[in-house]
Amino acid sequence: MDGQFAVPIPSRAGHGDVRRNNLEVVLRQLAARRADSRASIAACTGLTPSTVSRLVAELMELGLVRAAGGEGEPLPRRSPGRPATRLELDGRHVLALGAEINVDYIAVLGYDLAGRKLHETRQPFDAVGAGPGRSAEALASLCGRAVAGVTAEAGARPVRVAGLTVAVPGLVDVGRGVVSETPNLHWNEYPLAAALASVPGLAGAPVSIGNDANLGALAEYRVGAHAGVRDLIYVTGEVGIGGGVIAGGRPLLGSHGQGGEIGHMNLDPDGPECGCGRRGCWEALVGLGALLRATGAGHATGPARASSPEAKVAEVAAGARAGEPHLLAALAELGHWVGAGAANLVNLFDPQVVILGGYFRQIAEWILPPATQAMRAGVLAPGTGGCELTISALGFTAATRGGALNVIDQVLADPGRLAC
Amino acid sequence: MDGQFAVPIPSRAGHGDVRRNNLEVVLRQLAARRADSRASIAACTGLTPSTVSRLVAELMELGLVRAAGGEGEPLPRRSPGRPATRLELDGRHVLALGAEINVDYIAVLGYDLAGRKLHETRQPFDAVGAGPGRSAEALASLCGRAVAGVTAEAGARPVRVAGLTVAVPGLVDVGRGVVSETPNLHWNEYPLAAALASVPGLAGAPVSIGNDANLGALAEYRVGAHAGVRDLIYVTGEVGIGGGVIAGGRPLLGSHGQGGEIGHMNLDPDGPECGCGRRGCWEALVGLGALLRATGAGHATGPARASSPEAKVAEVAAGARAGEPHLLAALAELGHWVGAGAANLVNLFDPQVVILGGYFRQIAEWILPPATQAMRAGVLAPGTGGCELTISALGFTAATRGGALNVIDQVLADPGRLAC
Repeated sequence: MDGQFAVPIPSRAGHGDVRRNNLEVVLRQLAARRADSRASIAACTGLTPSTVSRLVAELMELGLVRAAGGEGEPLPRRSPGRPATRLELDGRHVLALGAEINVDYIAVLGYDLAGRKLHETRQPFDAVGAGPGRSAEALASLCGRAVAGVTAEAGARPVRVAGLTVAVPGLVDVGRGVVSETPNLHWNEYPLAAALASVPGLAGAPVSIGNDANLGALAEYRVGAHAGVRDLIYVTGEVGIGGGVIAGGRPLLGSHGQGGEIGHMNLDPDGPECGCGRRGCWEALVGLGALLRATGAGHATGPARASSPEAKVAEVAAGARAGEPHLLAALAELGHWVGAGAANLVNLFDPQVVILGGYFRQIAEWILPPATQAMRAGVLAPGTGGCELTISALGFTAATRGGALNVIDQVLADPGRLAC
Repeated sequence: MDGQFAVPIPSRAGHGDVRRNNLEVVLRQLAARRADSRASIAACTGLTPSTVSRLVAELMELGLVRAAGGEGEPLPRRSPGRPATRLELDGRHVLALGAEINVDYIAVLGYDLAGRKLHETRQPFDAVGAGPGRSAEALASLCGRAVAGVTAEAGARPVRVAGLTVAVPGLVDVGRGVVSETPNLHWNEYPLAAALASVPGLAGAPVSIGNDANLGALAEYRVGAHAGVRDLIYVTGEVGIGGGVIAGGRPLLGSHGQGGEIGHMNLDPDGPECGCGRRGCWEALVGLGALLRATGAGHATGPARASSPEAKVAEVAAGARAGEPHLLAALAELGHWVGAGAANLVNLFDPQVVILGGYFRQIAEWILPPATQAMRAGVLAPGTGGCELTISALGFTAATRGGALNVIDQVLADPGRLAC
């Protein structure tokens, strides 16, 4: 094959793409608060002042941008001419919804376009027992109540739902909106996006689905304690262990959007049985079910699910705090396996930080020391290549935040979609 | 942190960047043979005909582009005016060198700018015994002979060396040109790029270094049987097992360029001891050393290294072909672990293909069936998510090809560097 090789060629953008891209660039300048006037947007972007004025007018018409505190308020004069008008995102009436269906709860969270939280609900729910159809119904009802609540608080101005992105613990086909495979929910090829299209109040806004860990990683990358870190891994801590990878500032999705299934990384051929039917998966060693089995604190997937996952883990934490030896031993063992798995991830992805989400937060003080030790022992690069193992501050809300941020991204990438 | 989130902003290009980018775009059109005249380049790129003419003149002056078969040969007339001149890459006098230092051999390969192979040498070498200084000297000598050989064949026109990229099995600091850590060579913080700067004939051309697996993956992505596949993993098959990952069409390098250390992914806490000092690393289960130990065919890192690695593996293959039961059992066991490790990679990266390089080619018929079976058993996605496990057609040359392609990329990205 010498003399014949594939050369990547930068793609050429069409005219419609350029206009959409410019709308996005202007909107992002305002979203990131890098610029706050037509003149400063022009200076930051290299677009001509007349182009910026045209784009700002279009965004105002879409209701996405407004003059801060009214057109009359002047900014310090930077150049001759009429005083600059301070601009800001006007997204308070635009509702971006993120939702989550997990093994033992459903949740919904709403941001406005500027990332201000307008709504949050989370409730225990037996998604395994309910099955996909009734789970979708329950989530639709929760979303409907969210829209109604935000609308009631908004007053006279109508709330526009920009979209809904639902996080699911398992393999999802993002393009088709189908849940392909969920080892812990036992759903298979379920068209969740279609099932949610008729949520009351959604008014035809687009519904998409995503893997819970990928959306959690997006939330960490945007609003977490390590926001902006270009190589990070987010590990969900639920009954299932999923992974969301940001590599070089981009989500690593793989060829079918099914990358990051770190919970089914095999660590021990003689390890405990996993929900997926195999042995020694990371999830079988460090998932919530493993903790509850090892500590005898309850059955994560059994029929008796009176208490929330937090309540069960809180019970374990209370016992550990009281010094119960069998709990301390179980937590040390679990922490060891957390670090052993994290070491593999660091060897493979070389991230700056591995962030443990979900239930790991409640047992952090007992698992982090042995986990950090095991990670150091397992990483090839000296000093773990500088990678830090840490706990998410977003807790169980990472996936819903990621879902809502995903909707905001869709709006920023194509503001014109709100015109339809 | 609500209401405060990091928004990625498309970066603005300066004037010098635009000119360099346009040179690159024109050169890549010719390299990919998408266009072969000034008019067709203009049509493909959206650049104005006068800009294209200016850029082509600049590339001709740099000696990178020429009229095919002389300016006089006309193309079929597509538009009024003078006949179009067919253009082509004129890189036959530009030598891009890729080299490799591995545990038991050194190698060098030269491409011209269009990817035509001008030179290839590979010779057994004990890089562990020689240590970094003498290994660098031996490689410098090999590279010097390569330049001299190509120069002798080129005739009157002087050969210009565009650069040299050296592949090393281990962690490298690409920015500083330093080999950070090599579990199998036992080098540590060695400034290899600086040591090679004075290679005879290199005449000040830039020397860079890279991880062998990352460069092998680049070669697979460009000239391998799966060229252009945007999500692929290349696995080196040497004494060391390294991984190069192409994710979404881009090399996955991690935050320090140290991603892809798949050989030290832990698969079995009770597994055999690894060269890195740990137990149960993938490399300890499937590296060349593991094969030779399991089959008793020789010691890969011992003092007796009369024969090349291929010769040792050929011995094993011959025995297996003759039906020796202990060899067949050892190969089946090794194949199982190849697939078990590949399954973890598929769960994490969701690639379209996992390509086994190096020595795996010689034992493919015995290891692929058990490896494929183990991979199917270990992957969460149904049908392995469509991922194929296959053997590299590039054999031991992948890393040197990748090195030379890396140099070509540097020239395409900044053609003006050849003017200095």
